[in-house]
Amino acid sequence: MTQSETASADVFQEKWGPKIEAYRAALAKEVEPYKKYVKGIDYNAEHFNAVEAMESILTEDEKAITNCTAKQLIAKQKSGEYTALDIYEAFAKRGAIAHIFTNCAMELFIEEGRERAKELDKYREEHNGELVGPFHGLPITLKELMKYGGKVTTASYVCYLDNFIEKDPRKESISIQILRKHGAVFYMRTSQPQSVMHLDTDNVITGRTTNPYNRKTSPGGSSGGESAAVALGASVFGIGSDIGGSIRVPAAFCGLYGIRPTCKRVTGLNSLSGGAGQESIFSSQGPLTRHLEDLEYYMEHYINGGKPWIQDPNMIPLEWKKETVDKEAVTFGVLLTDTLVDPSDAIARGLKYVQEKLGTSNIKTKVITIDHGKMKEAFKQTLHIYGQSRPTHEKLFAASGEPLLPLTKVFLNFANPETNDVLVNNILKEEFKLYFHRLFQDEGIDFLISPTSPNVAEVPKNLTHWNYSSMFNLIDFPNIIFKTGLTYDPEVDVKGPTGIIPDFNPADYVNLPINLQLTALRHQDEKLVEGIKILDEVLL
Amino acid sequence: MTQSETASADVFQEKWGPKIEAYRAALAKEVEPYKKYVKGIDYNAEHFNAVEAMESILTEDEKAITNCTAKQLIAKQKSGEYTALDIYEAFAKRGAIAHIFTNCAMELFIEEGRERAKELDKYREEHNGELVGPFHGLPITLKELMKYGGKVTTASYVCYLDNFIEKDPRKESISIQILRKHGAVFYMRTSQPQSVMHLDTDNVITGRTTNPYNRKTSPGGSSGGESAAVALGASVFGIGSDIGGSIRVPAAFCGLYGIRPTCKRVTGLNSLSGGAGQESIFSSQGPLTRHLEDLEYYMEHYINGGKPWIQDPNMIPLEWKKETVDKEAVTFGVLLTDTLVDPSDAIARGLKYVQEKLGTSNIKTKVITIDHGKMKEAFKQTLHIYGQSRPTHEKLFAASGEPLLPLTKVFLNFANPETNDVLVNNILKEEFKLYFHRLFQDEGIDFLISPTSPNVAEVPKNLTHWNYSSMFNLIDFPNIIFKTGLTYDPEVDVKGPTGIIPDFNPADYVNLPINLQLTALRHQDEKLVEGIKILDEVLL
Repeated sequence: MTQSETASADVFQEKWGPKIEAYRAALAKEVEPYKKYVKGIDYNAEHFNAVEAMESILTEDEKAITNCTAKQLIAKQKSGEYTALDIYEAFAKRGAIAHIFTNCAMELFIEEGRERAKELDKYREEHNGELVGPFHGLPITLKELMKYGGKVTTASYVCYLDNFIEKDPRKESISIQILRKHGAVFYMRTSQPQSVMHLDTDNVITGRTTNPYNRKTSPGGSSGGESAAVALGASVFGIGSDIGGSIRVPAAFCGLYGIRPTCKRVTGLNSLSGGAGQESIFSSQGPLTRHLEDLEYYMEHYINGGKPWIQDPNMIPLEWKKETVDKEAVTFGVLLTDTLVDPSDAIARGLKYVQEKLGTSNIKTKVITIDHGKMKEAFKQTLHIYGQSRPTHEKLFAASGEPLLPLTKVFLNFANPETNDVLVNNILKEEFKLYFHRLFQDEGIDFLISPTSPNVAEVPKNLTHWNYSSMFNLIDFPNIIFKTGLTYDPEVDVKGPTGIIPDFNPADYVNLPINLQLTALRHQDEKLVEGIKILDEVLL
Repeated sequence: MTQSETASADVFQEKWGPKIEAYRAALAKEVEPYKKYVKGIDYNAEHFNAVEAMESILTEDEKAITNCTAKQLIAKQKSGEYTALDIYEAFAKRGAIAHIFTNCAMELFIEEGRERAKELDKYREEHNGELVGPFHGLPITLKELMKYGGKVTTASYVCYLDNFIEKDPRKESISIQILRKHGAVFYMRTSQPQSVMHLDTDNVITGRTTNPYNRKTSPGGSSGGESAAVALGASVFGIGSDIGGSIRVPAAFCGLYGIRPTCKRVTGLNSLSGGAGQESIFSSQGPLTRHLEDLEYYMEHYINGGKPWIQDPNMIPLEWKKETVDKEAVTFGVLLTDTLVDPSDAIARGLKYVQEKLGTSNIKTKVITIDHGKMKEAFKQTLHIYGQSRPTHEKLFAASGEPLLPLTKVFLNFANPETNDVLVNNILKEEFKLYFHRLFQDEGIDFLISPTSPNVAEVPKNLTHWNYSSMFNLIDFPNIIFKTGLTYDPEVDVKGPTGIIPDFNPADYVNLPINLQLTALRHQDEKLVEGIKILDEVLL
């Protein structure tokens, strides 16, 4: 550090240090009662596998409850087998331990969640077993940037540490209100990285979140608190948001399902963002889940029950309608590389495996190649678009003087907004969108299987190539992350992605699941779910 | 003119003069056979009423045909009462005369249309009376900026006089292809102003288009060729586009219905525009019609039959679904002024009349006031957004050296793109959208009745206050223009709009219909049609 850096670090520490300490202390206090469960577990071990450890901690009853799907939990509450409180205690225990293991929470309010579960039980008793709605008694974790009425929302910006959100339906996240109205139970708000523009999760307020399968690696980002929490069973649904891969990369890195719906089907209204006003690429909100069935359940009940277009004029009033897809008529395209960075051996193996398995089941696949020049230009424009909000971010950092983390610096260097021409960004974006739309049509494919990221996960600070996820933000085609059922094998998966990780070491990625991404044409979210069902049937 | 202006005018004349002359000569040649019908009519008279004159020219049969609705024309072709050729000849006669009266066409291809009508008849004969589709044999006029395969498309820019569009489904206007596929007959492409950014219609290639009700006034713009043509019965539907009022202002000035649908329900893909890449306010395409029934017919069959989302990934796959609205439960808000420019006496009288008529029918109305500060800021941002495309337009004008018309200069001075911040435009736009959405909800209104423009029409070059139409482009709430049934009365309607027309003379506006605008919440296009039905029932 230079002298002036040291001086400004001192000023920052003086003003914001105590607030950050208080913030962390509140978190630590919440998990204190759960510390007894992790005694003797070396959860700071380099490659610590928290998923495995969690299994050893839970009782059979807790496992039974927390492994249920949403639909099962609803049915079992209706039948009286479980109370909302039973469900809550099991999930909250996992959530508290998940935080101890991975530092996935920004805020915990376990007692408040417990009171809510009790209220829901009381409602059910007083209404002859009737439930409040399709999310009755279901614990849902929330990315912290969703403004929560009656609490502070920071989006991990230090300057927002006092940003108290009133309990006002016009100020609180609309999605939170929809979920609460239909019975959800909240107790954890999860971490996101500084600027919310890393595909990793590290911030100055609460520090780093780790991958539950392998502590040395990143849980992905920016919804990395969600992926860590959901993979460890802290909730039925984890709500993330995605403007460059921020639902999908964490879902993939933590072995989960995650949907980035077509924009404007799930509202992000009343979320805190440093990217306000950038309309070339919109953010999309959606769930991360352990079960595919839950992902579909969420989309159907959130959209059809919540009707987000009533509160948010930007939402499209499209009901969620089940599709049917004929397995025998369908063709899965396979994209092996974006032509800019070839994926690692593990990802290539996953792609090959899926092709083979589909082939064995007589489901058509077709390798798709993408024009290199067009892809290169599209990625350039994507970065330029993200760069549009650089001045806003710089102001937000300057407001507190918080030190910039390495991947924040990468983001801030994506493009120079002063020389950027938004109209050019948009024209080239639209050209690429049409190119990709016609590629589907010309190749006769229904879906496209592709990597989510160059590797199964990254050792922190390495993930700078966003293109596998961000290309679909650019053109707003919906995606779901799915499980191949394979796991990283350091003996076989020796090569990393080309050119971006000089010190790649296969041993770093042990235990990590190999997940991939499925894409459909714009607005074909329902069809996409059917595509995943076919894959799951073949693969799992 | 300065010396250098004279010099550059000479250069322009030398290079482009002959092309413009050839362009005009082709048009004149097309209408030559129809000149006989207008003998003895002084159609250059100052306040010439072309609508009245047209009535005196047509035979009873021609009137019977051209006054049919789309549905009737389809039924009568099915029954064999009319052939497509019968229909075509009647409409084409009106179209050719409309052009002689108002200069509404940019391009005519009457023989080509005739051949098409014959082909359609042949198809019907060969298929046991079956029709090609819901637009079988219906003459449809097209705003010239829609790229037409096998023809030149200029969008009125001189530099595009050689811009030949190939007959390629990926290059031609998707809407043209949808209409053609379902049986439409084309023979006229209509005029738009220089830059397509006036609410008037005058360009360097074909000159000024006039209002069919009163030659001294403007037909509105930018779809002013359409409004003149449709008001004179040249087609069943006239296809316009609207980014600041360009369907609605012409529809209002020419006594028509016109819908600006919510964006992304009707595709403008493969239209020529100087505004490419400006995505803060999108353009919307839609029909102008003489009958409300036709407007609904168009939307239903274009959307459900055409499924524009198959070709255009930006379209929302929302089928057109008939709504029902309970007259007794509904409330019409009434906006008397935008607080920036009070409308003329005629518009105020129209608004009052509609309120009274609704009251007499026991339909609820409520006067709505809009926050002055918010409106002022919103209009400012609107102009800044239009200003984003100034550099593109300047390049297009520089490419030919065409002289700038007065309203083009007004447009180019809306805002300075060099000091404009697109993110700020968008943030304030979204604030206003939410404000207006909540205004509907807080006031408990279903619809909002408001002026379309400060007056019933304008004497050319006066229309600089776009806000009555453009405020709804800013927030993308759909609108339909409707008829009050009243006409401008110079004895009563003595005052013009406040402050913008110093030499306002009531006598200038004789014969002009008083039309108004109805608005619903975003994506409520179908509901909006039902609102207009209620108004029509009460008013007409």
